[in-house]
Amino acid sequence: MRRVAVIGTGITEFGELWDSSFRKLGIGAGLAAVEDAKISAEQIDAMYVGNMSAGRFIRQEHVGALIADYSGLVKDHVPATRVEAAGASGGLALRQGFLAVASGLHDIVVVGGAEKMTDVSDTESSMIQSSAADQEWETELGATFAGLHALIATRHMHEHGTTREQLADVAVKNHKHGSLNPKAQFRREINRDVVLRSPIVASPLRMFDCAPSSDGAAAVVLCPLENAEKYAEVPVEIVGSGQASDSLALHNRKDICTMSATRVASDRAFAMAGLSQDDVDVAEVHDNFTISEVLAVEDLGFFAKGEGGKATEDGRTSLEGDVAINTSGGLKARGDPIGATGVAQAVEIVTQLRGTAEKRQVKDADVGLAQNVGGTGATAVVHLFRRA
Amino acid sequence: MRRVAVIGTGITEFGELWDSSFRKLGIGAGLAAVEDAKISAEQIDAMYVGNMSAGRFIRQEHVGALIADYSGLVKDHVPATRVEAAGASGGLALRQGFLAVASGLHDIVVVGGAEKMTDVSDTESSMIQSSAADQEWETELGATFAGLHALIATRHMHEHGTTREQLADVAVKNHKHGSLNPKAQFRREINRDVVLRSPIVASPLRMFDCAPSSDGAAAVVLCPLENAEKYAEVPVEIVGSGQASDSLALHNRKDICTMSATRVASDRAFAMAGLSQDDVDVAEVHDNFTISEVLAVEDLGFFAKGEGGKATEDGRTSLEGDVAINTSGGLKARGDPIGATGVAQAVEIVTQLRGTAEKRQVKDADVGLAQNVGGTGATAVVHLFRRA
Repeated sequence: MRRVAVIGTGITEFGELWDSSFRKLGIGAGLAAVEDAKISAEQIDAMYVGNMSAGRFIRQEHVGALIADYSGLVKDHVPATRVEAAGASGGLALRQGFLAVASGLHDIVVVGGAEKMTDVSDTESSMIQSSAADQEWETELGATFAGLHALIATRHMHEHGTTREQLADVAVKNHKHGSLNPKAQFRREINRDVVLRSPIVASPLRMFDCAPSSDGAAAVVLCPLENAEKYAEVPVEIVGSGQASDSLALHNRKDICTMSATRVASDRAFAMAGLSQDDVDVAEVHDNFTISEVLAVEDLGFFAKGEGGKATEDGRTSLEGDVAINTSGGLKARGDPIGATGVAQAVEIVTQLRGTAEKRQVKDADVGLAQNVGGTGATAVVHLFRRA
Repeated sequence: MRRVAVIGTGITEFGELWDSSFRKLGIGAGLAAVEDAKISAEQIDAMYVGNMSAGRFIRQEHVGALIADYSGLVKDHVPATRVEAAGASGGLALRQGFLAVASGLHDIVVVGGAEKMTDVSDTESSMIQSSAADQEWETELGATFAGLHALIATRHMHEHGTTREQLADVAVKNHKHGSLNPKAQFRREINRDVVLRSPIVASPLRMFDCAPSSDGAAAVVLCPLENAEKYAEVPVEIVGSGQASDSLALHNRKDICTMSATRVASDRAFAMAGLSQDDVDVAEVHDNFTISEVLAVEDLGFFAKGEGGKATEDGRTSLEGDVAINTSGGLKARGDPIGATGVAQAVEIVTQLRGTAEKRQVKDADVGLAQNVGGTGATAVVHLFRRA
């Protein structure tokens, strides 16, 4: 397989963007990435689009062709493929794009992710998000997506002594990082009290433990590493890609405090890259709920099982910590337009490795990781990046 | 890239299967393919699933993980990826699976396709199918999927003299083929009168011009050609794969009587295979409406533009014709569980090239083609197969 580099990134504002349509967001991110890579549309060989549920959010399936069409790529009949694995849709799109270039089939591939979530009611949005879990065994029986994560949080607190305050600290840190990211949905710092006094969503999780519903899109441009210097001052190589599945329903897991899919995907990515956790300077992880970040930093091997909450409390996951986690603000503060999230993570890591993250720049960042999760952990995708 | 072979196929019954759930269908087809390939579950490296709209048909996204889970593949955390491009979802899944093996990333890949359409009302089903077209410019303004194809049919009759009777002949032929296929949804022959007297759906298209709503699933197992003889008596190589996009909305096409995406995807597949139309003995094409098959046999280059109707009338696309089209019965008679269709096409072509198609066997079939279309032609995927 050929070595693959990211040569361009693009991202829209994230938020409740009632003036922007799905297609406008998708095109915006794509064009920004293409401009950043200084390529012309004619050079694009293929496109992959991560999207969870445009069918229900905007009643439009077939969004690969939609974005290709409205980006002007159908003149050359550029193949466009949508991939979906709930919250992991963007990471999966990146993996398919990586594979298309690595295989030698395509030379220049655009990977995008987009979701338009705020055109439906909050109730409808919640139902759609719950369709990432097992419809027959969880959703139909009344379990919400937040409710399932509340079970994980409760068990993690019981098993490992993780405290309610430590969960709050995840949100506090990510809001702090978000305040340094001009593209974040929430750019205001908060403190523990704000989290702990916010309304309960599913006990023990409160409003500030949950990532918001967001509209937004992100995109990256890939090419073979050997050509990357033609396009990018600082090419970033994708050195590892791992994907793994687990049971869709939570009740079939051996231990709901561990996301095995993250562990396995991470092992696969590190093995491919020939790197270890110690090499990682900066990571974007899937903090759709505060408890999810605690699991992530444990299951990715940055901290021992049960020590994720403590590590957060001690500042070891902050910008100046052992490993900087969610410098973009994460899903919590940057926002979580579901299908865009995995690609937005890649955009942040590439920005860090290029050294252009400005106020939130991690010093001498050389290796970065992105972890993208679907459902309550039934799909995990982990990518490793290195400054080339 | 490595050469890739199909070493196993599986397909469920197609029809209104009210006793079968989506997951049951998906597992059924997958297990049948795995048994046919004589592999064990532990050997599977990855899975790709084609599905159009489980989110709306059964309120379940994330169906890649779902099928992996209920097939017992999460023990080894097998990566599962759903791909979607409306009607072309199955063909796209096959292409991604092909790529995963060709690249060297994976050795044994299962490609499945599934859709459960009959658990919603006919009206809801029609709305969901219309979400393959442009929601902002077509669907929201009242255009149904059948209505858009009626525009194509009307124009083709006007431009090329295609007759109402010739359209009926597509259905008559495919029902005849379906009568020879024990897995077909409709196994009863019809005549021109049955088509011409059936209720109008969108003039000039009548009920018997339209493929049915179906439940069903299909699967194939892929491996590198060099290992194929270990598993299959008659391995079938995938010698070409082409994909192309076009405008999502019909009004943006230069000529609605031509599906440019089919032409381009077909050119790409033939170029990769080093074959020409004359080499093809048997083809499965996307006859979601009778007019679609007329366009397909023209745009694939089997007949000149405007002569598809006449060629059908003259029997040139029948089992004994120049090129046997839709020997399975096609979408019209075999059934069209949307996400399964592209994979079901591959199953039929492999069956023909193995020489095991029994009553519908094309004599000395050596090269086969499958053409899978999304929307009114915004996505087309063409694969070429050859007996290895």
